[in-house]
Amino acid sequence: MSKPTWQEIAEVAQNHRDDSIRRVDPPIPQVADPERLPLDRTDIPKYLLTTEEVIITQTAPEDLVASLASGKYTSTTVATAFLRRAGLAQALTNCITELLPQRAIARANFLDEYHSKHGKPIGPLHGLPISVKEHIGMKGLGLNAGFVSWWDHKGEDDALVLKILWNAGCVFYARTNQPQTLMHLETSNNLYGVTVNPFNSQLTSGGSSGGEGALIALRGSCLGLGTDIGGSIRSPAANCGLYGLRPSSYRIPVSGWSATMLSQEQIIAVLGPLSTSLEGVKMFMKTVINGKPWLNEPSLVPIPWRDQESYLEKPSGKKLKIGVIWHDCVVKPHPPIMRALQEVVEKLKAVQGIEVVDWKPYKHDEAWSIISSLYFCDGGQEETAAIEASGEPWRPLSKFILKDNQSVKKLTVEEIWHWTMKREGYRTEYAKVWNDTATESGETGELEGMVDVILCPVGPGAAPPLDCARYWGYTTQWNLLDYPALVFPVTKVDPTVDVVDQDYKPINEKDKYNDQLWKSGPEKYKGAPVSLQLVGRRYEDEKVIEAMDFIKESIGLPFADFV
Amino acid sequence: MSKPTWQEIAEVAQNHRDDSIRRVDPPIPQVADPERLPLDRTDIPKYLLTTEEVIITQTAPEDLVASLASGKYTSTTVATAFLRRAGLAQALTNCITELLPQRAIARANFLDEYHSKHGKPIGPLHGLPISVKEHIGMKGLGLNAGFVSWWDHKGEDDALVLKILWNAGCVFYARTNQPQTLMHLETSNNLYGVTVNPFNSQLTSGGSSGGEGALIALRGSCLGLGTDIGGSIRSPAANCGLYGLRPSSYRIPVSGWSATMLSQEQIIAVLGPLSTSLEGVKMFMKTVINGKPWLNEPSLVPIPWRDQESYLEKPSGKKLKIGVIWHDCVVKPHPPIMRALQEVVEKLKAVQGIEVVDWKPYKHDEAWSIISSLYFCDGGQEETAAIEASGEPWRPLSKFILKDNQSVKKLTVEEIWHWTMKREGYRTEYAKVWNDTATESGETGELEGMVDVILCPVGPGAAPPLDCARYWGYTTQWNLLDYPALVFPVTKVDPTVDVVDQDYKPINEKDKYNDQLWKSGPEKYKGAPVSLQLVGRRYEDEKVIEAMDFIKESIGLPFADFV
Repeated sequence: MSKPTWQEIAEVAQNHRDDSIRRVDPPIPQVADPERLPLDRTDIPKYLLTTEEVIITQTAPEDLVASLASGKYTSTTVATAFLRRAGLAQALTNCITELLPQRAIARANFLDEYHSKHGKPIGPLHGLPISVKEHIGMKGLGLNAGFVSWWDHKGEDDALVLKILWNAGCVFYARTNQPQTLMHLETSNNLYGVTVNPFNSQLTSGGSSGGEGALIALRGSCLGLGTDIGGSIRSPAANCGLYGLRPSSYRIPVSGWSATMLSQEQIIAVLGPLSTSLEGVKMFMKTVINGKPWLNEPSLVPIPWRDQESYLEKPSGKKLKIGVIWHDCVVKPHPPIMRALQEVVEKLKAVQGIEVVDWKPYKHDEAWSIISSLYFCDGGQEETAAIEASGEPWRPLSKFILKDNQSVKKLTVEEIWHWTMKREGYRTEYAKVWNDTATESGETGELEGMVDVILCPVGPGAAPPLDCARYWGYTTQWNLLDYPALVFPVTKVDPTVDVVDQDYKPINEKDKYNDQLWKSGPEKYKGAPVSLQLVGRRYEDEKVIEAMDFIKESIGLPFADFV
Repeated sequence: MSKPTWQEIAEVAQNHRDDSIRRVDPPIPQVADPERLPLDRTDIPKYLLTTEEVIITQTAPEDLVASLASGKYTSTTVATAFLRRAGLAQALTNCITELLPQRAIARANFLDEYHSKHGKPIGPLHGLPISVKEHIGMKGLGLNAGFVSWWDHKGEDDALVLKILWNAGCVFYARTNQPQTLMHLETSNNLYGVTVNPFNSQLTSGGSSGGEGALIALRGSCLGLGTDIGGSIRSPAANCGLYGLRPSSYRIPVSGWSATMLSQEQIIAVLGPLSTSLEGVKMFMKTVINGKPWLNEPSLVPIPWRDQESYLEKPSGKKLKIGVIWHDCVVKPHPPIMRALQEVVEKLKAVQGIEVVDWKPYKHDEAWSIISSLYFCDGGQEETAAIEASGEPWRPLSKFILKDNQSVKKLTVEEIWHWTMKREGYRTEYAKVWNDTATESGETGELEGMVDVILCPVGPGAAPPLDCARYWGYTTQWNLLDYPALVFPVTKVDPTVDVVDQDYKPINEKDKYNDQLWKSGPEKYKGAPVSLQLVGRRYEDEKVIEAMDFIKESIGLPFADFV
């Protein structure tokens, strides 16, 4: 038997996916030839599903669990609705690697029986369907992490995070696409192809958790699991108009995922939620952390989920102090991002209880040079081997981050220590910048009046055209510092308002590349969601969520509809 | 000018030390020629100081701060007493690198003025003298970390932990000795020579924080700062009859210390307290953590000091469950250690509210092979360079751990990842062993009835003769797992009781070496303190201390007098 070509493997993978979708019952309605579809496909599922299915799938996760707990909906009804909508999402954006109808319906039946027998939900997420990025392992299922040569890898066990969510009562039903190497801010690989943006199919859904982004934007899921080492949760959340949290490291378990360089600890990859609602993000964090994952994954820090206490009620009635980064001084965000920031800041300034100040970015270019030097300490050997083992071609953004990236070198132990020292030095300097926002210090040296959270762009623009997501700085900044960073939807690109500033002179090559993207035609971005990012200090995940909630309610976010 | 020889530098270092001691006022009483001193020198200071000085220096730190706060003692009186007793400790054990009489008295005067003006202490440690291991930097003072070639290094700033303690009101007055490379479980270098055990000067005081061990045992300090990457707080605490805590990593700040391989993160070195009392340990932890060190040292985890809640009051009235390791299945502890364990366990079994079970050690030999492969990822190049730069000779235990240690190799990035994966795998397996001690699991999978703490030896014997501390396994085990580990004094070696078991057949070469130490004559160990270790799961530092307090009060520890 000759070794199969990468194309043959990809065909097997796609057939497997398509078979899994065909097993959904009732069958998923046929969608027209993609060539004939509009760029904005977000409305289409509404016309192809039953009214009840549309209502269920457009319900926020916190309301869905309430309806499941009360028995208003059965778990089977809910799972079926999401399976069907996820199948449509695949036809519209190519976001799925496989659906799990048998597993999901068996699980839903079990939950329904439990509910009917005991008259109560099995746990806080009883019956909630959750979608999962493919490289988060499931027992007995494939685990390719975007590499053709890994197609036959199998999950030995369910990832720890999935076990905890399972114990809380959820239903797993969909696995989602990711890019080759997992190191793109887009979603493109040689097994399944490219995942596109539901709001505008000429744009990327973002990545690397871009299958989740597209699926959740189309309401084929209301809560999904992604991973983030440079923006991989936040880029798809931002591009698709969703909430997405990159938690601080070592809070959410990662064991059981598949990736290259699993023992690399210089820059910590994290797992986190994308959701249609802020409450969905919070529910995920709370449920997983309440499961005490540190008992099984000892690298985790046993900090409970602290939402009993308020981080905003300050002793002396001080305001929530928000520092704003308009521009990281490396790449200027496109006009719609600046507009969103301006609109948000303007409204925030009018809110009693909020104080807005400018935050001067501290050497964000140096931050990139540090993190990009530490991403691939083996010079990218593991990625290269995983790509080349099958003969699959390098995707453009794999080449961009691994081959065209001058920071990628095989490091000696001394070089690893050199960059690690730079990293810690930078983190310490940034902490000082933050401490220096204090307006007073008590007798015991306690700092007061510091900035609480930073408000900033998620990227240098809305979702870019395919293969153009080449500036990571607005997200990697917080990976390097290990700060929790929450993305939230604000508005949409409007080419009639977000006009080109022909006079802008780019300040460097990266800025020039980004500027050209916009100057080449704002209309290309039509309808793309515009999102922003709220960032807290390390381990202040709860505070970021509480501040977000306050901000959202105070100024009525989002300013546009996304469903 | 020719470069000075290492001997010339050592002479300068010792003269500097001796000058600093001579500046103490009133002058320190002369001690007889060391040749004429008894092996046990612990009583000598009592005969050479004033009655008030003896009382003050033998007061537990928690009582001392109370007396300082109330004004019963002035800070100047207390600082003077400790300076004088520390000078005697130097004459008796060679534990000091320098005293700081001018700084200390100036500080004490300031505190006394503050107290007299405001009628209250400046902070929770007002006037408390604290001794500090030399490699924890002080602004403008030398910072040699045990290397002759580093003699002229200077602290650029006070270490962060010192700033916090300073803000709490303490007085720094003594800096203490450490071994060449900091990687011995003894204290021997070419700048200052060997620190010996106050209870028996033919034995080591332990190390690497052995200057602290000897100084505190002689009550030249009641609270001191050490550091630990393989037992360096716990070995001197055990050898000298003290309490000593190796905290979980990333709770106590370390920035501002000096050492080789500062950016090495595979095995985390920590800073922690040695004290004459358990309350001293607790006071240190609480004060430092209340200082929110994570605001300035961002690698730290912002877990507050949690002593408001009790870890022992269990919902269903369950008992404190103690797992006992009698023998790590690699090196059998000497008879006095076994006796101490037996006596403690026997008494614990009689305590209402305590349950004792055996803990089967899980592959402690493999743990050593992992940690010893990760200690010196550069093959010991930094240590070698620091030693050889001055031409100073290799101390026997530097040679033992760096040159005779087959695990020391310069690693590639792939090898670092290999051993890091082994480390995480081992930690996960050990967590499972711990989880498996649960006797029940609730409906939601919550584990109950698990072992709370492990009781075990600190080493394979009491303080060994000089240059014989060659088995690290009883302490490194918990460094590898990053478990908090607390040493406490139990009894003393009694050669008439702790007789040789001539029939014992060693199970391997390490066991044979250790067995020979005892067989060559128990009387060599006469009077040496015998201590044990209480270990908790990662980040359960508070629980370990609370359990220790309960154990201590329940069975009346220690069983011998140490002062």
